[in-house]
Order: sequence, then structure tokens, then C-alpha cells
Amino acid sequence: MDNNYQHNLNKGISVDCVIFGFDFEKLKVLVIQRESNEAGTMARFSLPGDLIFDDETLDQAASRVLKELTGLENIFLEQLQAFSSLNRLSKPADKEWLRQMREQPEERVITVAYYALVNLNGFNPMAANFAKAVSWKPVDDINSMAFDHFEILQKAHQQLHSKLKIQPIGFNLLPEKFTLSQLHKLYEVIAGKELDKRNFRRKMIKLEIVEKLNEKQKGVPHKPSSFYQFNLENYQKLAETGFDNFGF
Amino acid sequence: MDNNYQHNLNKGISVDCVIFGFDFEKLKVLVIQRESNEAGTMARFSLPGDLIFDDETLDQAASRVLKELTGLENIFLEQLQAFSSLNRLSKPADKEWLRQMREQPEERVITVAYYALVNLNGFNPMAANFAKAVSWKPVDDINSMAFDHFEILQKAHQQLHSKLKIQPIGFNLLPEKFTLSQLHKLYEVIAGKELDKRNFRRKMIKLEIVEKLNEKQKGVPHKPSSFYQFNLENYQKLAETGFDNFGF
Repeated sequence: MDNNYQHNLNKGISVDCVIFGFDFEKLKVLVIQRESNEAGTMARFSLPGDLIFDDETLDQAASRVLKELTGLENIFLEQLQAFSSLNRLSKPADKEWLRQMREQPEERVITVAYYALVNLNGFNPMAANFAKAVSWKPVDDINSMAFDHFEILQKAHQQLHSKLKIQPIGFNLLPEKFTLSQLHKLYEVIAGKELDKRNFRRKMIKLEIVEKLNEKQKGVPHKPSSFYQFNLENYQKLAETGFDNFGF
Repeated sequence: MDNNYQHNLNKGISVDCVIFGFDFEKLKVLVIQRESNEAGTMARFSLPGDLIFDDETLDQAASRVLKELTGLENIFLEQLQAFSSLNRLSKPADKEWLRQMREQPEERVITVAYYALVNLNGFNPMAANFAKAVSWKPVDDINSMAFDHFEILQKAHQQLHSKLKIQPIGFNLLPEKFTLSQLHKLYEVIAGKELDKRNFRRKMIKLEIVEKLNEKQKGVPHKPSSFYQFNLENYQKLAETGFDNFGF
């Protein structure tokens, strides 16, 4: 879209983005702060989101808004679902903020949430526009957010968890080369439980969706592990027929 | 909601419902006609849908609109996704119809689609409101619909197909008691391909999600088959751990 053209905001519809990352220890989510002096107030963190333009699709809006607020781009955003509860904008602090930000702060807004899995180390988010700060927070540490964003986060987290029960996911959360221990840790984190390590490795190797590289870790304080990479072609074949014997 | 109360329409957001049924032969979808004299024109069939009220959630709107147009109620509607392409209402015949029906026919409308699987014999749809007729059409016979409804139907159909690859679904499309042949036929219809009958029966029985009843078909021109019923409890246990060895 031409940046010189004045877009009309659609005052009734927004998009919000749940961007998950993994730092080899914890599942994290990208959050913004609307005001810089409220660093400690969990309830004021929000997902990157804003009203859509009337001349863009929801997919386009999600990519644009994510880029405008955090600098992140070229991320595959998948639609999660629409959220429409009648009181989603009615917390006093949220209303106060909307009064400062929007022409029609009382307008009902339905939001369409998107989510994505990214390799956290591959992106350096930078706050811009009305985002005063942007950071990765461990999902498990969050128990409250602005608007209905905590509900949206929980739904996206559930979705991730449900998907893992039926198909291998999460390769986007890892760098291109990873060890089976890192993959194992990721699956434990998403599944929210311990997974038997030997059984996990056996399953993964049998599925042939990861392949061993002729390369090992360097400079680690333990016996270096082999690196693996994801085999997209085999993954797609399996996706066609169903992931028999998968499921964690 | 109180019916005497005047609700405000949200002019930018609608819901559309994809209701799938199965007549033991074909997968069908519930469609309405906006005008009674156009019975033969495929392009004028539409999904039951309308603008939402400003004081209801999307879920509430989907149930209300479905009931208002077709009489169907108490159906579990699941959100599919939002559709937002810029030209979704721009076909000439659709614009003409909108000019007759809506106060602001040029307004951009984003729609949130819902879908449901029902036992077609358990419901008798009756056209009402702006629906002039309502009927079950074989999904495979449809190649064009009003607005972007054909795209929505295809997406819902794909979703059904994808789900079947990873988990047993579709029991809602059958009556409470069914034969394994009927279940087999349903899965072939959704999968869009022949499925080996013996292998199918073995899989289904092994999963323990159907249980044999002490009752057989009556008055059929062939050897009467046993009836089965769905075991929801076992299904939910499997859903928790993943459907190993499933997948068609």
C-alpha cells in the first residue's frame, strides 16, 4: 500500500498478534507496553494490536500492525479466532488509555487474533508508534494483561498445546540447526509436562522429520551433541497422511 | 435477549453458518435462497448469515441468525475463521440485493464464519425472515454461491477433511445408533476417497470409541447389521493423549 495515501481506520475491528518465541528454556510471548513508566504493572502489558484500515484484509492488517509496533516483519501469522465479548475494552485503565488514543473510544471493537511461532534469536523487536517498550515475557509468568489479551494469549497457548498432541510443531521456534535435547525441551515446555527423553528421541527419529547433520555443538561444557535440521519435505508427506504414532 | 428491545445492527460485521449434514450417501450443506423465483441459479444460494447486533457476541449472533433464517436451534456452532477480502460483497447481483436489504449497502462487512455438523434427519429447517427457501444441497454439486460463501464453504469442507486426518470426527452427523457401514460411508465421503472396509472397521473397534449395541437393523433388504453407538467418554480420554494410529 502507498504510504502517502491516507487510510481510513475501521473503527469496529482490530487485530492482535500472539508471537511465541523459545529461548531454549521457556516459552515466551512478545508484549508491548503502552506507557513507559509502568514497567512493573503486568495488567498493562498488551499484545501488539490495533484497528485495521478499511482498505486492507485482516491478514494484511496483522502484518502491518506487528511491524509498526515492534519492527518485526516477514513472519507467518496464522489466524487464531475472533474475540467479541461485550466487555473486552471495559477495564477502567483500558478505557482511560482508549480515550487518549482513539477518536471514538467508546466504540465496540471486535478483534481477530493471529499467532506465530518464531525463532526468538532471529528477531530484534524495537518499540515504535504507540508502543513504548517491547519485550519477550515467559508465558507462565503472565496472569493478567490489558483488554482481553490474557484470554487471547491463553487461547493461543491452548491451541499450541492441542496441536502438539496430534502433529509435530514448533520447528519455527528453533534455529535452523538444533540438538535433540533442545527439541525435547521445547516439547516439554509446550506440553507442560516431562516427556521421557529416550522415547521422545526414538519417536522423532522414526518419523524422519528431523535429520542428523554432520556437525556438532562447539564450546559447550558437556559432551557436544549432534545438530539436526528439520525435513520439511517429509513433514509435508506425513501431514498428508496423518501423523500415526505421534502425540505427546 | 429481550425481543421487545430494539437492537442496533453492527454494520461492519456479520456471521455466516456452514451447517453440514449427511444423508448416508452424501455430505450436504444447508443453503438459503434470498429470492423465491431463482431456484435454479446456483450463484444465488447463500449460507445462512446476517449482520450481528451491537449487544451480542459473535457466538450469540451465529445462533440467533441461524434460528431466524432456518428455524434450527440448539446446534453447537464452532468458529471457523474471519473472512475479510475487499471484494467479498462486490458481485453485481449481491450488490443489488444489498441495496434492497441494507441501510448502508456500500459498507464494508467482515464476516466470521461458523460451522457445525448435524444429524440431518433430526432437523427440519424452515425458511423465515429474508430467507425465501432453505434446503440441503450436496456439497460436491456446489460450484458457486452468493458473496464469498463458496470460499467459506470450501474452507469449512477442508477443515472437516483435515480434522479427519488426525482425529475421529463426524459422529454428530449420524443418528445416535448407526451401523459401521454407515460410519464407513461417512468417512469415505469426508475423506473424498475409498477406504478399505476391513481396515476401517478394525481401526474403529480398536480405538474403542464406538460400542456395539445388542440391536440390529430391521426391515432391510440385506443381512441386518448391528447398531453401534459413540462412546464419548473414551473419545475424550483419547483426545487428551492423542489419537495414535488414527488418520485416514
